[in-house]
Amino acid sequence: MYKLFLALTGVWMVSTSAMAQDINRATTAPLTPAPLTIVIHGGAGALEPGRYTAEEEAAYRAKLNEALEVGYAVLEDDGSALDAIEAAIVLMENSPLFNAGKGAVFTREGKNELDSSIMDGATRNAGAVAGVTKVKNPIKLAREVMENSVHVMFAREGAEKFAKEHGLEMVKPKYFRTEHRWQSYKKALKAEKENKQSALPIDYKWGTVGALALDANGNLAAGTSTGGMTLKRYGRVGDAPIIGAGTFADNNSCAVSATGHGEYFMRLTIARDICAQVEYAGKTVDAAADDVIHNRLENFGGDGGVIVLGPNGDYAMTFNTAGMFRGVKNASGLQEVAIYGD
Amino acid sequence: MYKLFLALTGVWMVSTSAMAQDINRATTAPLTPAPLTIVIHGGAGALEPGRYTAEEEAAYRAKLNEALEVGYAVLEDDGSALDAIEAAIVLMENSPLFNAGKGAVFTREGKNELDSSIMDGATRNAGAVAGVTKVKNPIKLAREVMENSVHVMFAREGAEKFAKEHGLEMVKPKYFRTEHRWQSYKKALKAEKENKQSALPIDYKWGTVGALALDANGNLAAGTSTGGMTLKRYGRVGDAPIIGAGTFADNNSCAVSATGHGEYFMRLTIARDICAQVEYAGKTVDAAADDVIHNRLENFGGDGGVIVLGPNGDYAMTFNTAGMFRGVKNASGLQEVAIYGD
Repeated sequence: MYKLFLALTGVWMVSTSAMAQDINRATTAPLTPAPLTIVIHGGAGALEPGRYTAEEEAAYRAKLNEALEVGYAVLEDDGSALDAIEAAIVLMENSPLFNAGKGAVFTREGKNELDSSIMDGATRNAGAVAGVTKVKNPIKLAREVMENSVHVMFAREGAEKFAKEHGLEMVKPKYFRTEHRWQSYKKALKAEKENKQSALPIDYKWGTVGALALDANGNLAAGTSTGGMTLKRYGRVGDAPIIGAGTFADNNSCAVSATGHGEYFMRLTIARDICAQVEYAGKTVDAAADDVIHNRLENFGGDGGVIVLGPNGDYAMTFNTAGMFRGVKNASGLQEVAIYGD
Repeated sequence: MYKLFLALTGVWMVSTSAMAQDINRATTAPLTPAPLTIVIHGGAGALEPGRYTAEEEAAYRAKLNEALEVGYAVLEDDGSALDAIEAAIVLMENSPLFNAGKGAVFTREGKNELDSSIMDGATRNAGAVAGVTKVKNPIKLAREVMENSVHVMFAREGAEKFAKEHGLEMVKPKYFRTEHRWQSYKKALKAEKENKQSALPIDYKWGTVGALALDANGNLAAGTSTGGMTLKRYGRVGDAPIIGAGTFADNNSCAVSATGHGEYFMRLTIARDICAQVEYAGKTVDAAADDVIHNRLENFGGDGGVIVLGPNGDYAMTFNTAGMFRGVKNASGLQEVAIYGD
């Protein structure tokens, strides 16, 4: 039966050159150098035009452009997709603008608990950490777990112990605190008490950074880093550190980083589902992202977005929220950042 | 392009009635009552005939049969698939024979840290907990998280705090300790020190329990519970509590519970991949499990097994280890338990 299936899809593949190209990458080396590409996001949400002042908007756009340029420079310098996404994510973690690293949102108890994960599309090695409070750059810790441990994922104190043993840069928990997020936290607590959903701050629900890259060797990588959800309960693990939910990368299909209401992303295994639709249903990255975000996630009542990158350089930046901080830079000379919907 | 793909697979589906039946379940109500089915596993590993005494073997077989009967009785009594798998898993958690609940293996620090997850195929609601040390039945806690929290996953102290608040039965950490596992732990520590891989105890690497069920309403459910890997590092999270890795259930494709070297199962998103192959490549549960275990997992150098159950009652119990504790009971009068390979 399955052979018949393969024969039929084989016929179909020959008739669709773009798709055949994607699928051939699974088993053959690329004939031409891969088109260097980096795609990033800085969180999806109720981002309506007018939400930010012109100065705030300019600051976001400048930081997104900087992340694209830093990551792309790594690729141009023959660096790996992993190095490129790490560089871009570290820059966003270090910026107070995004809900990752410095500038993370607060848990119900008024703490910053950070999650991150990374995946190498060439080897499908992966690393993930959940609930760290003293590691300056969680994405670096996720990579250290991937490269220098026999495990894929560490949570909380165990993750921090590993970080210390492996010489990661540690900071005091207050390093992550910004006055803006603290005020959002207090506002969210108050709104919850008064049961005023409409009064909840814009960053109540989510906000995450992520990056994908395609390097000169045709390798994909994906990474995600977040402070999670404002008012999240102690010990809650969201989608960002879950391989297959918030992050996935496989040279045979695609790379994905997600941002949104993480619980829906975990139940739908959003990142893996998009790559599975590319791998098994022969969809383009765009069509797969469309189905998962505008059909499956929406039917569940979930909100958020994804960035997706295929091994041929095709990409998608898809969301069902009003906006998503996002950007792409590639070998065709494209460099674009955006905040709001079209 | 995608329409062409559907048209071709459509032609193929019509020619394979069993497959067409599976896929029709995705969009239409079942015409006949679903064939009540429960499938369980109690861990995969180097289970060669002769490994256990006749008495030990009989004890394992008796407990597997008991778990099947307890779960199946729930289904016969018009209970839900979720209730059936919970009953079967609780029974295995309470038995010192399996590496879940009482009888869990020890971490590097000599502790028992338990992981569990559950998923409802009808709603794709899910609950998961990682690293609990004082909750008697982690599968009950996973279900409580699924049904009575806004989150999907809690780790460590946060999970325990939630358990206490929700009235789960709490025990002292020493409740989980058995002399057999303690001796295995000491042997593993010694073997590691002397770098004698061959001297490692049989339960060094893994051991997990899981159950799947199909109820009279045609709903699938999956659950997994484990003590993880002997000598696992503090805070390590394995595949058992990861939705898409150790556990997945969707009425539109299948239900899966996995057991094995968890790191590989996380990187390959084993449970979701099997259901994705059913959903998008139109495979039978058996063919999908075969590909993922004997092709993908094996190519990665990983070991372990899965149980899989489809919405029409088709099931698979697939492993690339010498054996896997397993069993199935269904409406056709089948009741079967096994330990070793064929």
